[in-house]
Amino acid sequence: MQDRRGSSLRFEAGRLSVLDQRLLPQQECWHSCDSAEDLIGHIHSLAVRGAPLIGIAAVLMLAQQALQGLRGGALLQSWQALRAARPTAVNLMNYLDRIRPLIDADAGPAALCEAALAIYDEDSAMCRRLAEQGLPLLPDPARILTHCNTGSLATAGIGTALGLITHAHAAGRRIKVWVSETRPLLQGGRLTAWEMGRAGVPHSLICDSMAASLMREQQVDLVLVGADRIAANGDTANKIGTYALAVLARHHDIPFYVVAPRTTVDPQCPNGDAIPIEQRPADEVRGVSTAQGRLLWSPPDSPVHNPAFDVTPAALISAWVLDDGVHHAFSATPT
Amino acid sequence: MQDRRGSSLRFEAGRLSVLDQRLLPQQECWHSCDSAEDLIGHIHSLAVRGAPLIGIAAVLMLAQQALQGLRGGALLQSWQALRAARPTAVNLMNYLDRIRPLIDADAGPAALCEAALAIYDEDSAMCRRLAEQGLPLLPDPARILTHCNTGSLATAGIGTALGLITHAHAAGRRIKVWVSETRPLLQGGRLTAWEMGRAGVPHSLICDSMAASLMREQQVDLVLVGADRIAANGDTANKIGTYALAVLARHHDIPFYVVAPRTTVDPQCPNGDAIPIEQRPADEVRGVSTAQGRLLWSPPDSPVHNPAFDVTPAALISAWVLDDGVHHAFSATPT
Repeated sequence: MQDRRGSSLRFEAGRLSVLDQRLLPQQECWHSCDSAEDLIGHIHSLAVRGAPLIGIAAVLMLAQQALQGLRGGALLQSWQALRAARPTAVNLMNYLDRIRPLIDADAGPAALCEAALAIYDEDSAMCRRLAEQGLPLLPDPARILTHCNTGSLATAGIGTALGLITHAHAAGRRIKVWVSETRPLLQGGRLTAWEMGRAGVPHSLICDSMAASLMREQQVDLVLVGADRIAANGDTANKIGTYALAVLARHHDIPFYVVAPRTTVDPQCPNGDAIPIEQRPADEVRGVSTAQGRLLWSPPDSPVHNPAFDVTPAALISAWVLDDGVHHAFSATPT
Repeated sequence: MQDRRGSSLRFEAGRLSVLDQRLLPQQECWHSCDSAEDLIGHIHSLAVRGAPLIGIAAVLMLAQQALQGLRGGALLQSWQALRAARPTAVNLMNYLDRIRPLIDADAGPAALCEAALAIYDEDSAMCRRLAEQGLPLLPDPARILTHCNTGSLATAGIGTALGLITHAHAAGRRIKVWVSETRPLLQGGRLTAWEMGRAGVPHSLICDSMAASLMREQQVDLVLVGADRIAANGDTANKIGTYALAVLARHHDIPFYVVAPRTTVDPQCPNGDAIPIEQRPADEVRGVSTAQGRLLWSPPDSPVHNPAFDVTPAALISAWVLDDGVHHAFSATPT
């Protein structure tokens, strides 16, 4: 059995460990996961995040548990708990559904391990394919606005939307990235700004509310975002704030692209209204929590509305960059 | 000479003191201002903020300096320094221009004091007039989205957009307020949430990026914002993020109203392109600074774009609620 070492996930000697993304970029703190409950806790707290990544972590956790002797009903129980860990992201469910027959057939740890590592490797290869598919869409030079974090921290490979950006930069394209900070959890300000700095990609950090005036000043050529789930009609759930960017891009006649693997598509889900949206704790909006500590700046009893995701209707999406090609009209079945 | 005691500004025995709005709602800390430089420092740091308020504070500071014996060229120097303290807000310039003839004529401290207090009182009366003008625009019940802080902290009276909201609530209207937190300086999360809580107005705090999905879910009936400067053609500069809300409101067919005194109108400024936009320090976006301390969550060398204001073109504004009436088409001269 081979080990795998990604930017934010490791599987070594049959043991899963995950990078605590809440503490980046100030601290690089790895947690070894001893149980499905451990991993689910890290998913709930957003220590582990990124739609592809949590799916990969979940199948690796089941492989680890199988290697440790878990089987039958107990393994199935882990499978079920993991599958419910994040309701919006569909990759988690897709990856878990792929290995379910192995659990049902009691196929044993070696088979489960092989399947989980295959998913890891496919995700990594898929990231590269996404980048190759998307590259022709980018003008040169390109001033790209992106949201949240869709880079190497969110996948087993180079990432989705951000993978395309680093790939284009490495290919010699003249890229400038506008990084929206992505309140409340600041995945843009903490993670994307850090990844762009490490990759040497020219970028500027902005607050989410600043994207509109940049567009009005014609400083944005296109918007690239990832996806947590794509419904059968192309409606796309992604980090809260994505829908605003799609409306703004349309108003300013700027292309808006979703970059995601086919595993993000949920053909069972007819449209965006059927995608469940997770509501998160009020204190995320009342303040912020980082490696250095926690600050609450709002009145402690302020009522809060905190949806983690929003849905962008297909009509506002210029194209979906999937691993099987660039789709200007969406189809839930691969072409 | 009478004293004045506002929510965030006091003029007592000829001395100006200001509430440090950066420390709210956790600390109520007043600074007495000994010089124009003192006040300018507080304006730059945003301890003192709110377009009407900084104008009132500036004229009161000149009255204080005149009472302390300053006159002629020295007083004019203070006047000039104060007038440059915040380039976007025009009330500051308007109020200072009103008392300039008294300085030129060496009219003495009593006249200057009287003029400054008259401006204070006018601002307070103007807030009430704004609220009365705007009330018929509100449906009942009304779910109102507002941005930044335009309440009693930002003026000598009940405020502009937020003054209308508290007035409507007090008049028995069924009001629900969506408070956008207003990154980077969180005037919504810190100040508006606090004012709404104190006034007992039902409200929920959101991140700026959440407004779009609320509109899509038909949870917003109208948007009410203030203004830092209104150009002759109706283009309106206001806190960064306002323009995004205007585009989103238009997309969702939701009325978007600017509530501001006539003193915010700058007839010399032909349109939004002529309004200077202040760029602010990078660390405001890299992190946050509050009464409890300072947290930087982004890489310390991240390049940042941090405009304090944006411009909403007149075409996106449903009406301007000014103290002389509700204007569905803008005119730079009072009607």
